[in-house]
Amino acid sequence: MTERAESASPTGVHDEISPLRRVIVHRPGPELERLTPDSREELLFDEVLWRGRAEAQHREFTSLLEADGVEVLELTRLLTDLLDLPEPRARLLEGALDPTVLGDIAVQDLSEALAELSASEVGRVLIAGITVAELRALGVRPRSLSLQNAREDHLILDPLPNHLFTRDTSAWIGDMVSVSPMRLPARRRESLHLEAIYRHHPLFSGTAAPRRILGPEGAGAATVEGGDVMMLSPRVVAVGLSERTSAVGVERLAADLLEDGTVERVIAVALPHQRSMMHLDTVTTVVDEESMLRYGPLGMLETFEIERTGDRLHSRARPADEMDQVLARGMGVDSLRVLTAPLDAYAAAREQWDDSCNVLALAPGRVVAYERAASTNDYLRSQGVEVLEFTGDELGRGRGGPRCMSCPVARG
Amino acid sequence: MTERAESASPTGVHDEISPLRRVIVHRPGPELERLTPDSREELLFDEVLWRGRAEAQHREFTSLLEADGVEVLELTRLLTDLLDLPEPRARLLEGALDPTVLGDIAVQDLSEALAELSASEVGRVLIAGITVAELRALGVRPRSLSLQNAREDHLILDPLPNHLFTRDTSAWIGDMVSVSPMRLPARRRESLHLEAIYRHHPLFSGTAAPRRILGPEGAGAATVEGGDVMMLSPRVVAVGLSERTSAVGVERLAADLLEDGTVERVIAVALPHQRSMMHLDTVTTVVDEESMLRYGPLGMLETFEIERTGDRLHSRARPADEMDQVLARGMGVDSLRVLTAPLDAYAAAREQWDDSCNVLALAPGRVVAYERAASTNDYLRSQGVEVLEFTGDELGRGRGGPRCMSCPVARG
Amino acid sequence: MTERAESASPTGVHDEISPLRRVIVHRPGPELERLTPDSREELLFDEVLWRGRAEAQHREFTSLLEADGVEVLELTRLLTDLLDLPEPRARLLEGALDPTVLGDIAVQDLSEALAELSASEVGRVLIAGITVAELRALGVRPRSLSLQNAREDHLILDPLPNHLFTRDTSAWIGDMVSVSPMRLPARRRESLHLEAIYRHHPLFSGTAAPRRILGPEGAGAATVEGGDVMMLSPRVVAVGLSERTSAVGVERLAADLLEDGTVERVIAVALPHQRSMMHLDTVTTVVDEESMLRYGPLGMLETFEIERTGDRLHSRARPADEMDQVLARGMGVDSLRVLTAPLDAYAAAREQWDDSCNVLALAPGRVVAYERAASTNDYLRSQGVEVLEFTGDELGRGRGGPRCMSCPVARG
Amino acid sequence: MTERAESASPTGVHDEISPLRRVIVHRPGPELERLTPDSREELLFDEVLWRGRAEAQHREFTSLLEADGVEVLELTRLLTDLLDLPEPRARLLEGALDPTVLGDIAVQDLSEALAELSASEVGRVLIAGITVAELRALGVRPRSLSLQNAREDHLILDPLPNHLFTRDTSAWIGDMVSVSPMRLPARRRESLHLEAIYRHHPLFSGTAAPRRILGPEGAGAATVEGGDVMMLSPRVVAVGLSERTSAVGVERLAADLLEDGTVERVIAVALPHQRSMMHLDTVTTVVDEESMLRYGPLGMLETFEIERTGDRLHSRARPADEMDQVLARGMGVDSLRVLTAPLDAYAAAREQWDDSCNVLALAPGRVVAYERAASTNDYLRSQGVEVLEFTGDELGRGRGGPRCMSCPVARG
Repeated sequence: MTERAESASPTGVHDEISPLRRVIVHRPGPELERLTPDSREELLFDEVLWRGRAEAQHREFTSLLEADGVEVLELTRLLTDLLDLPEPRARLLEGALDPTVLGDIAVQDLSEALAELSASEVGRVLIAGITVAELRALGVRPRSLSLQNAREDHLILDPLPNHLFTRDTSAWIGDMVSVSPMRLPARRRESLHLEAIYRHHPLFSGTAAPRRILGPEGAGAATVEGGDVMMLSPRVVAVGLSERTSAVGVERLAADLLEDGTVERVIAVALPHQRSMMHLDTVTTVVDEESMLRYGPLGMLETFEIERTGDRLHSRARPADEMDQVLARGMGVDSLRVLTAPLDAYAAAREQWDDSCNVLALAPGRVVAYERAASTNDYLRSQGVEVLEFTGDELGRGRGGPRCMSCPVARG
Repeated sequence: MTERAESASPTGVHDEISPLRRVIVHRPGPELERLTPDSREELLFDEVLWRGRAEAQHREFTSLLEADGVEVLELTRLLTDLLDLPEPRARLLEGALDPTVLGDIAVQDLSEALAELSASEVGRVLIAGITVAELRALGVRPRSLSLQNAREDHLILDPLPNHLFTRDTSAWIGDMVSVSPMRLPARRRESLHLEAIYRHHPLFSGTAAPRRILGPEGAGAATVEGGDVMMLSPRVVAVGLSERTSAVGVERLAADLLEDGTVERVIAVALPHQRSMMHLDTVTTVVDEESMLRYGPLGMLETFEIERTGDRLHSRARPADEMDQVLARGMGVDSLRVLTAPLDAYAAAREQWDDSCNVLALAPGRVVAYERAASTNDYLRSQGVEVLEFTGDELGRGRGGPRCMSCPVARG
Repeated sequence: MTERAESASPTGVHDEISPLRRVIVHRPGPELERLTPDSREELLFDEVLWRGRAEAQHREFTSLLEADGVEVLELTRLLTDLLDLPEPRARLLEGALDPTVLGDIAVQDLSEALAELSASEVGRVLIAGITVAELRALGVRPRSLSLQNAREDHLILDPLPNHLFTRDTSAWIGDMVSVSPMRLPARRRESLHLEAIYRHHPLFSGTAAPRRILGPEGAGAATVEGGDVMMLSPRVVAVGLSERTSAVGVERLAADLLEDGTVERVIAVALPHQRSMMHLDTVTTVVDEESMLRYGPLGMLETFEIERTGDRLHSRARPADEMDQVLARGMGVDSLRVLTAPLDAYAAAREQWDDSCNVLALAPGRVVAYERAASTNDYLRSQGVEVLEFTGDELGRGRGGPRCMSCPVARG
Repeated sequence: MTERAESASPTGVHDEISPLRRVIVHRPGPELERLTPDSREELLFDEVLWRGRAEAQHREFTSLLEADGVEVLELTRLLTDLLDLPEPRARLLEGALDPTVLGDIAVQDLSEALAELSASEVGRVLIAGITVAELRALGVRPRSLSLQNAREDHLILDPLPNHLFTRDTSAWIGDMVSVSPMRLPARRRESLHLEAIYRHHPLFSGTAAPRRILGPEGAGAATVEGGDVMMLSPRVVAVGLSERTSAVGVERLAADLLEDGTVERVIAVALPHQRSMMHLDTVTTVVDEESMLRYGPLGMLETFEIERTGDRLHSRARPADEMDQVLARGMGVDSLRVLTAPLDAYAAAREQWDDSCNVLALAPGRVVAYERAASTNDYLRSQGVEVLEFTGDELGRGRGGPRCMSCPVARG
C-alpha cells in the first residue's frame, strides 16, 4: 500500500480503511429528550431513544476509538467554541433563524431572545431546539402567525437528533470536504453547523484546513448524504443512488469533483429505495484492501461509471451482473472479495436492520461493530477480520451503526 | 369490599384489581423471527424484536406472577393440547385455512401439507406461519395463483407476533368471555385460537367454563379489542372508543351485555385516535378500589353511558369535564383518585410510549410494571402503591406492557 | 356459430357478443347529489358529477339500446317493486340496516324512522342514503354513539352512486348469476339489492330465473367484480386479477364454477393494479367472434388457466407472450384479432381514461361507445365495426363506459 | 370613487373591482395533451382535460373580456417574444435547465438539443415539456443517470398545464408585482417565465413597467400564490393562509410590503387546508365596493392584522367572529355585504367545486362567471350584480374559475 500511504495528507480521507486518525462524532444529548412518539416520524426515527442509555453506549464507542489512538472531536464542543467568536456566532444564528423557514416575525422574536445567551446556551438551542415556553422564559412573547395558537410545548426551532450520525452531514473526499445538501428538512440545519466548523474553527485552519469546501447552498433536488459516499481508492468515489441521495445530486457532485481533478471516476450504485437501505453504507462497507462486507439479500445492482473527457461528462451504465467488477476496478484490485454472513432471508434482514453491515474500519481488517450483530461479527472473525464490539441496542434504534456515527477527517 | 368478594366465582373477572388467580399469557417464540423491517408495519410493530431477549424478559414477567401465586397458562401449550384432539384440530385448521382469505387452491395445498404433522408442528405453523420453502419441504408444490411468482421466503400463512398481547384477543366480563372481533387482519386468526381454547380445552370445562362465549363471527366494522375493555366494577364495564375499538363495536357489545343482564351499564370513553393511545389501557389502568393511573397530557375526554330500558338501548353523552364523575360512578366510589406522574409534556409522552401507564394489578394497590418507566414507578410508590418491576426494553418495543401481555381468567 | 346459438337459453349470457336482449341499468338519480368534493374519494369518484347532465346522457344511452330492440330494466324500478312486498322489504331493510356496520342503536333509530315510509321513499333512502337532518324530519332523534356529535348533513346511511355501474354488482355466467362480493365498503350494499332482485322479483321467476345464484356472503378477501368477468365462450370465462378482483376471489369463483360444471376453464388475466385499469373491461372488450378491442400500452400480460381434474383444481401460469393464444383458445378461435387504435402513449392513455376501450356489444361487430372516444371509434369503423355513439362527458367522469353501465341478463 | 380613481396609475392594480383594463391569460395548448391519468396528480389536476374543448371555452372567456374593452395579453405570445431576444432567451433557458433539478448531464444534453430551435419551438418546450423521444429526434442521445432506463415517452422537462391559472404565478399589488414563490414543484418554473416577462418584455417597460418586482428566489417554505392575494383597497391586502400560501410566506410578503410603505396593513385569513379551498379566491371574491361573494359553509375564520411600527412587525389575532369587521375595515367600508347563495350543504359544496365563488370583476357590480354555477349566478343577479357567463365544464375540471385564469395588470 505504498502508493496509498504517499497520497495521504495530514488531514484528508483517501480511502475507507487506512488507519483512522481523527474523527468527528456527536454524543447524544438533550435533543434526544425532544423525541416523542408523535415527533419521531418527522425527525426520521422509528423509535423513541432514551438519553441515558444512548449516551452511555456512545461513550463506549468513543472510548474504543480513543483506545485505538484515534483523536475524537465532539461536535457540541466544536460548535460551542465557534459560538464564542462574534462573527461565527452571527453567521450561525443567521443560518438557524431563517425567515424563509420560520417567518420574519418569528425570527424577530427569536433573535431578541437569544441575544444575551452564553455560547453553550445558544449551542444547546441550536441542537436541542427551543419551545414556546422556553422563549417566554427568556422574556419574549411569541407574535408570529404560526405561533399564536401554539401550545406551550410547541417547538419553534426543531431539535436535531440526527446529528448523532455525523457521517451524513459532511464527507471528506481526499483533501476536500463536501458539506451535504441533505434530503430532508429535518436535517438541513446540521449542514450549516458543519460548514461553519470547517470554515471557522481553529482546528480546521492552517494545514488542517480542507483545500476546498463544497457547500450545500441552493441544492434543490441535488441531494447527497455522506452515508452514500465511499472512497473506494484515492481517485475513485462510489456514491449510492438512494432514498436520500438523488441521481441529480450524484451528477452535481460528479461534475464538481471531476472538474476539480482530484477524482477521476465516480461510480453510482443504484440502491433499492427503502428505509432499511437508506444509504449505501447500510448495506455494504469496506473492511480491507480487497473486501467488502455486504448484506446478502441485496443482490447485484446496476451501476454507472461517470468520467469526464474534455469538458463533457460521460456516464456508462453497467448491468447488475458487472457490479463486482466495477467495484473491484474502483478499488484498484483484480477481484473483489465479498463477505456475506450465511443467514436465511429473515435473519439477514433482521440483523441488517441492526446495522450489522455498517462497520467502521479502524485499519485494514480491523473494524468496530455493534455487539448485537452477533452472527455477522462471528462470520467476519471466521474470515480473519478483527471485530471490536460495543453495546448498541439503544443507539441502533436510530437506524445507524458505527460508520454512520463517525465522520473521519484524517486517515493514513 | 364484601360485595365484590361475594360476587366472584371460581372462574371469572369481576373487576380490575381483586387478587389475580389465573391468567393466559403467550411466551414469544419463533413467530418473532419472522418480523422484519419490511413486514413490521403490516404486523403492527414499529420495531424488530429480538427473540432471545424478548423470551428472557417474558420469563421474568411470568416468574414474577408465579411467585405471587398466580396460575400462568401458556397459550402455545393450550393450543398444542387442542391439536392433539381430532375434532378441535379439524376446526382449528378449518379456521386458519380459510379459502376466502387464502384462496381455494392454496387451502388445498396447505391442507395436504399439514395433514401428517404432529400437534406441536401444526401449532408452530398456526403461530409462526409457513413459507413457500417450508411448504415445499413438506413435499407440496404451491399452485395457488398468488403463489406462482412468490419468492421462497414468502409467507403463505402469516405469523402472529401479536399473540404476545393476550389481553386484546379475549376479555372476561364477569363469568362470560368475549372473544374479540379484532380490528386488523393481522390479528384476526388470534381470535380463532382463543375461541377454540374456551370451547374445547379441558381447563375451561366444567365449573371453569365460561357461562357464555361471545364470538367474533361476522363482526364487520363492529370491532372491540380487550385492551379497551375494563371492568370498573362487577356490573359496569368501561370500553375505549379507539383506533381499534369502533363505536359500532361498543354498541354491539353493549347490546349483548345489557340484554344478558350481567352488566347494567357500559361506559364508552372517546379516546384520541393515535397509535400511541391504541387502547384505553395504554393511557389508564386501575390500581386500587378508588384509583386510576393516568397519562397526564391525556386530558379530560367525552364519555357515553349506555343502559337499557325495556327493550331499548339508551346512550347519554357526558361532556369531557364530567369524565371523572362518570368513572367514579362506574367504580362505585364517591370520587376517583387520579394518579398522574409529575412530568413535562415530553417526558410524559416518552414514558407513556414505554407503557408506563399499562400496569397489571395483582391485588388492590400492588401492580406489575416495566422497570423502564422509572419516574412513573417512583411516583406510584410515593402514593403508596407497591410496584413490582421487570426488564422490558425489548418487549416494550412491541408497544404493550404488563396489562397488554396478560388475560386474567380468574380474579378474587 | 350454430353451437353458441343452441346453448343460449331464454335468460342467460353465454358470450360477450350474441344479440343483446335484456339488460339491467341504473339511471343516476338523487344519490349523485350527495357526491361532494369531500366525499368523492370515499365514494370512489375522481370528480363530482352533475345530476341533470348525467341523467340526460344516460337517457341517450338507454334510448339507443331500446331502439335496437333491447329490453331495458331499471334498477330503481325493480327495487321499488320489491319494497312493495312485505317479505322482500323486510329482508332488504335487514341487509341495509346492519348493526355490525351501523351499530345497534343506529339500527334501532333507523328502523323506527323507516317503518312508515312508502316503497318509493324507502327505495330512495336505500340508494341515496339518509342524513341526520332527514332522520330528524321523520321524527326520530339519533342516539347512536357515532351520531351524537354529527352535523345535520352527516350521512347515516351512505348513498350508492356506483349503482350506475350495474356491470360490477352481478355477472351472469351462462344460466347462473354471480352476485359480486365487492372489494370496497362503498359498494357492498349494492350486492344486497341485486341478490334480492334475483331471488324475489317476478321478472326473475319461472323460466327467467337464474338456475343458481352465487351470493356474496362472507367473502372476506375473496372479491370479484363484474367488470372483471368476461364470457369468452359458453364454457370459458376470463377474469381480471385487478385492483378490485383478488387472486383469492378468482380461486373461489373458479372452484365453484368448475365444480358446477357449466364452465370448463377459467382464465385469470393479471392486470396492473392501477386506478385507470380498475377492471378487465376498462382495457379490453370483445367486439366480435374473433376480435378484442385493446388499450395499446397495456402490453402482454401473464395469464393463468384454471381447470379441474377429479376433485382437484389446477392452475397453469402462462407467460405474458402467450396471452393472445390463451385468449384465442378461450374464445374457441385459431387466432385472436387484436384491435388497437394507433395513438401515441399520451393520447392512448387519455382516451382510455375516457373509456374508449369499454364498449358494449349489441351484436357481433356492432358496439355502443362514448362519442368522446373519437379516435378509437374512427379506428373501429375503419376495421369494419359498427359504432353507435352517445354523449358521455359527464357520465365518463365516473370512470365507466357503456359496458360498465350495463348488466346483460339475456343474450342470443 | 374619486379617491380610488386618482390613486390608479397607468399600470397597476389597486383594488379588485375598478374597471379591468389589461390582463395576462394563458390559452391552454399542447401542454394539456401531456396530462394523463398517471401524471395528473403530480401535475395537480383531478381530471384529464381535453385540449380542443378547453381551448374553445378559453376563447369564449377572452372574447367576453375583449368585448368589454379589456386588453388581453397571451402568455405564450409574451414568452415567444422574449425568446427572440438573445439575452432573455439565455436567461430563460438557464432557469428552465437547472442542474439542481435535472442534473448536470441532463442539462448538458438538453442545452445541446435546444440550441438551434426557433423561439416558438423553444417556447413550446418550456410550456409543454420534452420527452426522451423528442430529445432523440433533435439528434441528442440522453446520457443522464436518471434517463438511462427511461421509456421513450418519459418527460425530461415536465409540462406546465397550470399556466392556465395566471392568477397564481404573479400578483400586482399597487404598482409593484410579486412573482410568486409557488408551493409545489410542478409550478415553480411558471414563475421564471413571469419574472422574465416583467423584466424584459417591451410591453412592461417605460411607464408600463412595475415599480418593483418581488422575486421568488430562495423562498424555501415562504410560499405565496396569487390566488390568495386580494387587494381589499389601495393600502390593504388580504392574503389567504392556505394549502398553498404558508404563514411564513405571509410574514415574508408582509415584511417586504410594509417596509416598502405602499401597503399599510396585511390581513391574513386562516383558511381550512383542503384541496377544495386551495386559495382564498376559491371561496370568496369581491364583487363591488362593499360586497363579497362567499361560500356558505365556509363559516367565520380567524384573521390576523399585520402592521409595522418603527422597524418592528406586529400581528394581532382576531377571533373568527370578527372576520367581517376586519374585512370591512380593510375595504374601507362601514360594514361588509356578504353574498351567499341559499343552497343546502351538498349543493353548496358541489357548486363551489365548480368555481361558483371564483368570479372576476370587470367593474364594480359586473362579474364574469362559469355558466355551470347556475344557482349562484341567479342569486347574484337577484342581488343586483350583473353576471356575464361562459361555458366552463371542461376548464373547470382544472379547479379554477375566471379569477384564477386572469392576472390583471391594470385596473381603473
